[in-house]
Amino acid sequence: MQNNDEIKPWKILSSKMALDVKWFPVRQDTVELPSGKVIDDYYLYESPEIAVVVPVTTDGKFVICQQYRHAVGQIMYQFPSGTVPKGETPLRSAERELLEETGYIAPHFEPLIKVAAYATKLTGWQNIFLAEGATQKQVPPYDPEEATRIVLVTPQGLEAMIDRGEFQVPDSLAAALLVLRRMKQ
Amino acid sequence: MQNNDEIKPWKILSSKMALDVKWFPVRQDTVELPSGKVIDDYYLYESPEIAVVVPVTTDGKFVICQQYRHAVGQIMYQFPSGTVPKGETPLRSAERELLEETGYIAPHFEPLIKVAAYATKLTGWQNIFLAEGATQKQVPPYDPEEATRIVLVTPQGLEAMIDRGEFQVPDSLAAALLVLRRMKQ
Repeated sequence: MQNNDEIKPWKILSSKMALDVKWFPVRQDTVELPSGKVIDDYYLYESPEIAVVVPVTTDGKFVICQQYRHAVGQIMYQFPSGTVPKGETPLRSAERELLEETGYIAPHFEPLIKVAAYATKLTGWQNIFLAEGATQKQVPPYDPEEATRIVLVTPQGLEAMIDRGEFQVPDSLAAALLVLRRMKQ
Repeated sequence: MQNNDEIKPWKILSSKMALDVKWFPVRQDTVELPSGKVIDDYYLYESPEIAVVVPVTTDGKFVICQQYRHAVGQIMYQFPSGTVPKGETPLRSAERELLEETGYIAPHFEPLIKVAAYATKLTGWQNIFLAEGATQKQVPPYDPEEATRIVLVTPQGLEAMIDRGEFQVPDSLAAALLVLRRMKQ
């Protein structure tokens, strides 16, 4: 008992910038749906590509960042992450962000999965890497715009944080569960 | 070896609407950081609260939706989800979205976790529920703006989709991994 909808992409008839600012460019598309219906006010945030790293230290601990997140007004836990600038590969961004945000380096970065942060309204993808064998190279410099507290937790500790509902950034949560699942296999 | 940053919230000095449209309201905040630095152009999307449902049928299959997602221009898999309108509880929205999008109902909805879709730039939270014992009540009506193909998969099938990198909506991916983990415990 199914409706057997065939899923087709929409057609973009025209686009313009609705908010033409560097840190939050919003595009307004006029789109034609497969049904023929035209919508002239589909807004989306042309968000950057993101690199996310799950760092696991040589003694098997996860390196987690605690940071203030302004849109929700809360201090949250998540893995190191940042924007992939034009001309840089997601892998290079992952290496750079790990060092800049936490002071850690790792000998090997493995692509885990790629997710779309908010696929209806944000254009950017999140490229998630696993970095095993991480070691601390330096104390991370203090960044007033992104003050970060580093927390090291065991796999059991991370499972407990997840079960208490404290790990609330979805791409980091998904990445944590993927790595924890693999550790048990 | 830590920087021991103390993480403090920012202070909002003033706010105004930068894009005052119904489907994508963008707010511009002037914020004061703990360092004293003032930023006068912090933009954020006042995104809606969302309800997400992981439906598991009486014979143990996951009910998944395949839909076109315009911001990334791709057809993607995810669990049923939708906006929580003002005056409705996330639980009620979850029940309603499950029926509207898939035609399924379930006797019991259990809160799994709450995540912040994109905590730096989007205000909205995603409330994720597990709905076990789901059964199909009706063929879902065709919605030209959100055409949906329903797919039923076993836990093994869902694990395989995840391993192939086909389950790319982060809140749905995290929810799937949480439920699969629990099924093994």
